[in-house]
Amino acid sequence: MPPRLHAWLPILTWSRRYTAQQAAADGVAAAVVTLMLIPQSLAYALLAGLPPQAGLYASMAPLLLYAVFGSSNTLAVGPAAVTSLMTAAAAGAAAAHTGAGHAVAALWLALLSGGLMLLMGVARLGFVAHFLSHPVVSGFVSASGLLIAASQLKHLLGIPLKGDTLPALLAQLPGHLGAVHWPTVAMGAVVLAALWAARRHLKPLLQRWGVSPFVADIASKAAPVLALVLSIALAAGLDLADAGMKVVGAVPSGLPPLTWPSWSAEAPALVQALLMPALLISLVGFVESVSVGQSLAAKRRERIDPDAELRGLGASNIGAALTGGFPVTGGFSRSVVNYDAGARTPAAGIFTALGLALAALFLTPWLFHLPQATLAATIVVAVLSLVDLGAFTRTWRYSRTDFVALALTFGLTLAVGVEAGLMAGVGSSLLLWLYRSSRPHIATVGQVPGTEHYRNVLRHSVLTHPKILGLRVDESLYFANARYLEDHVAAQVANHPQVRHVVLQCSAVNDIDASALESLEAIAERLHDAGVTLHLSEVKGPVMDRLKRSDFLDHLCGQVFLTHHQAITSLSAE
Amino acid sequence: MPPRLHAWLPILTWSRRYTAQQAAADGVAAAVVTLMLIPQSLAYALLAGLPPQAGLYASMAPLLLYAVFGSSNTLAVGPAAVTSLMTAAAAGAAAAHTGAGHAVAALWLALLSGGLMLLMGVARLGFVAHFLSHPVVSGFVSASGLLIAASQLKHLLGIPLKGDTLPALLAQLPGHLGAVHWPTVAMGAVVLAALWAARRHLKPLLQRWGVSPFVADIASKAAPVLALVLSIALAAGLDLADAGMKVVGAVPSGLPPLTWPSWSAEAPALVQALLMPALLISLVGFVESVSVGQSLAAKRRERIDPDAELRGLGASNIGAALTGGFPVTGGFSRSVVNYDAGARTPAAGIFTALGLALAALFLTPWLFHLPQATLAATIVVAVLSLVDLGAFTRTWRYSRTDFVALALTFGLTLAVGVEAGLMAGVGSSLLLWLYRSSRPHIATVGQVPGTEHYRNVLRHSVLTHPKILGLRVDESLYFANARYLEDHVAAQVANHPQVRHVVLQCSAVNDIDASALESLEAIAERLHDAGVTLHLSEVKGPVMDRLKRSDFLDHLCGQVFLTHHQAITSLSAE
Repeated sequence: MPPRLHAWLPILTWSRRYTAQQAAADGVAAAVVTLMLIPQSLAYALLAGLPPQAGLYASMAPLLLYAVFGSSNTLAVGPAAVTSLMTAAAAGAAAAHTGAGHAVAALWLALLSGGLMLLMGVARLGFVAHFLSHPVVSGFVSASGLLIAASQLKHLLGIPLKGDTLPALLAQLPGHLGAVHWPTVAMGAVVLAALWAARRHLKPLLQRWGVSPFVADIASKAAPVLALVLSIALAAGLDLADAGMKVVGAVPSGLPPLTWPSWSAEAPALVQALLMPALLISLVGFVESVSVGQSLAAKRRERIDPDAELRGLGASNIGAALTGGFPVTGGFSRSVVNYDAGARTPAAGIFTALGLALAALFLTPWLFHLPQATLAATIVVAVLSLVDLGAFTRTWRYSRTDFVALALTFGLTLAVGVEAGLMAGVGSSLLLWLYRSSRPHIATVGQVPGTEHYRNVLRHSVLTHPKILGLRVDESLYFANARYLEDHVAAQVANHPQVRHVVLQCSAVNDIDASALESLEAIAERLHDAGVTLHLSEVKGPVMDRLKRSDFLDHLCGQVFLTHHQAITSLSAE
Repeated sequence: MPPRLHAWLPILTWSRRYTAQQAAADGVAAAVVTLMLIPQSLAYALLAGLPPQAGLYASMAPLLLYAVFGSSNTLAVGPAAVTSLMTAAAAGAAAAHTGAGHAVAALWLALLSGGLMLLMGVARLGFVAHFLSHPVVSGFVSASGLLIAASQLKHLLGIPLKGDTLPALLAQLPGHLGAVHWPTVAMGAVVLAALWAARRHLKPLLQRWGVSPFVADIASKAAPVLALVLSIALAAGLDLADAGMKVVGAVPSGLPPLTWPSWSAEAPALVQALLMPALLISLVGFVESVSVGQSLAAKRRERIDPDAELRGLGASNIGAALTGGFPVTGGFSRSVVNYDAGARTPAAGIFTALGLALAALFLTPWLFHLPQATLAATIVVAVLSLVDLGAFTRTWRYSRTDFVALALTFGLTLAVGVEAGLMAGVGSSLLLWLYRSSRPHIATVGQVPGTEHYRNVLRHSVLTHPKILGLRVDESLYFANARYLEDHVAAQVANHPQVRHVVLQCSAVNDIDASALESLEAIAERLHDAGVTLHLSEVKGPVMDRLKRSDFLDHLCGQVFLTHHQAITSLSAE
């Protein structure tokens, strides 16, 4: 088989060496993850504004397809908190705008983002995810966590709240406080407290009782399942649904239906409305997935291939679109559980899909009495760990410009919405990067007496020559800073009328792009018109090779010196 | 007076030292520029789809306002070829879309782009113009030149052609060839040939006849005026207008009217449609203006202040909007003529405005018989010098990625339109920059035997230690390349299972932003999980200061070494 096919289908590699031992490990991990995924997938479906079974459906075909195309051995694919929130916002807006159903819009969203990921993976465009700088992702994820928690208030309080932004949700709160359903509040509060306590204290407690660390860990992660079972029992026993508590209700049994986002009359408008959200969901999902995948792979000195990840996630999302699901990605918590529970290969994902298929076939009747408040509490506990307010002080101390991007993304995501926040974050990152790189550090340098070293005149007591200006550029030269160099040289020469030679020390210049080349030509020409000669020193090999391919050196009146010291000695001797 | 006011109103500085000698020089330059501007401003008004007098109007108030706020002594502001083309496209589309008049749309466009420039100047946001990299500007200007020339075919052939793209214009040509008006063609061809010859041969010819170089230069630049006068005489004498030749017709006499883009019913839609074009016109106009201004200022070791330029151009455009004009900028050819003719201060602009006012008052009756073919020929000769096809081969040889941006901008501008071309250019520049910086050069380094120097193992025969991996990153670390570093280190460590220490040599790292800091933390943690320790060496002072403000160094298990050699010696001694 051609090696290229193996790169595209990682399953061909691992499945041929698959051992019984690996299968046993994968099976255990799959059982643990299945238990964890049942409440999680139901909860994220509700978060996305869809019926609970959509969460189960979105956790089967995508897992199978990821196992075929993905490159991580331990990533667990399925609905995730942030992408579900984005799905709710995008599908809701598009459905309202075009008259299509919310579920149809979610299918289209999965199809589009899957197609975009596949396209990016095939064209090796994974690098576009770099547009999402860390402060942007951090601000976005924190804000999304808060937004998700706020969106669950309606389930925890038993009141109707609508809206995609924090102000919208909070503004409705006072008007509904009189209608709060206290049994629901009690159920939510108890589950919330129990899950919170389990998360913080169950593992050390069990270990103190002599339980092995591994089992203690799994048990504390499976706490939501226990909460689920107990609250179903309580709600069914006391018939709380009749008392006005909102429960999940009838969930159809059976395997996922085959669905196809049909090309109806509203489809063109729907696709147009969903294209940008789909791109954003793809990027966010990809970034989350790759970060988790890379962390877990590195622990075992394995590798993941970002382009294979894009293809795997793309196939998964298309799978979700064809089987009644919604956008999926590699989730953080479930992948960590999968890893910790000992998954060795993507076969664990296949086994998990089988486990969920059994759940979909046989467990759904038991979910009728599951209170929505329990699912909401599950979500709130999960997402509040995403909120990292410490990032604000850390980033403020480290870099003011990064702080601006973080704060802008956070604020706009909460106040205007997930898409506006993310786009403002990307835009501000680019603008701030441009601002920062538009002012490269340029030092006027002079000779450290008695040596061949040249240092910044502002930081060291050094010797300078009245007719020679030595400038060291501490950055590669390219379109973002080329014009600043022009300004800087013009200002320096205007301020030093005696100067006859300008020497650019290029020791820190790793690249000169076409814009910067043009600027250097303009600088040389303008200096020449003013009776000054431009020279270069310490140009790196690859940069010099490139300059030789242009006619810059033919037109340069000055010289290119191997060292800055040679330049100064030779020019001051004139 | 506070010094800040002087920075904002350069006129306060130069006017107080204004001498009779300077006034004489400025007067001569103004006379020459006025002569040149009469045909040019009429022609660019027609190009922008406006009545000819709009060109005269746009050359008065803007010049006065620039003289007050601008920082260049020689820049001549007024309608320019590329911005006029952009005005035609944007005002045409917005007028068709909203039902407003073309002239009203042009006023709004001037007001919006003036407002944006003023805003950018006050907020010191001039750096956003760096988004327009040199290949993008070059491709855009060349394509605009061709597009303008093609748009003048209708005047040169006397046939109706409509459209904003080259395919649209050329596709209509065959259908109209039968209707070509041959006297118009003859007039256009003669003027075209004469102007072309004057541009290439008049100056050397006059010099050979003993005319001084200065006068010869001015005479060759004033050739269009002669062409204008002769073709008016010919058209009037032979009554060519009656024979079917299109002439300028009645141009109202008088000073510019006071206009105000009124807030009518269609205004909100108009503003929305024009905002993006206005931003693009501002950026293009600013880039053109600053390049010319800087070149001319440098020749006399003067300086221009880009933020003052933005304020000056902003005020000029608002002035144009209030006096029946359209978007203006600092034009290349007129500024060079102004400089060559000896302008010393912005007062030359004031005198030019006065000259044009006289023309508007007394010359307009004479323009009735001016053939449109003559103006078209003036434009074609002027813009064809903008087309620089050599840039394609030069850029291809120098940098493939820059070539892609150039070709994309050029092709889309011609085939789809000026705005699409420019935006695709900016977008592709950013993507390509991201692509390029997403793969920084990272060299595995080893010791040059017998020295303390470390070099790339691929280029030199050097010594390496099986348990120590030395990596040199040749780029600042920031969001665009941070994840690549993660991938690269992960791959290297996965490929070298014996490695126990990774040392990052940071001698070329000028900055580490918050994203890269996060990546370094992730790398350190993942390596730690895999039993490998991360160390740094040769971290620059400012970068180290910054790292100390984060908690990265507290969590780093490895050390920070002053030199790479110290790192290797100390680690290999373990």
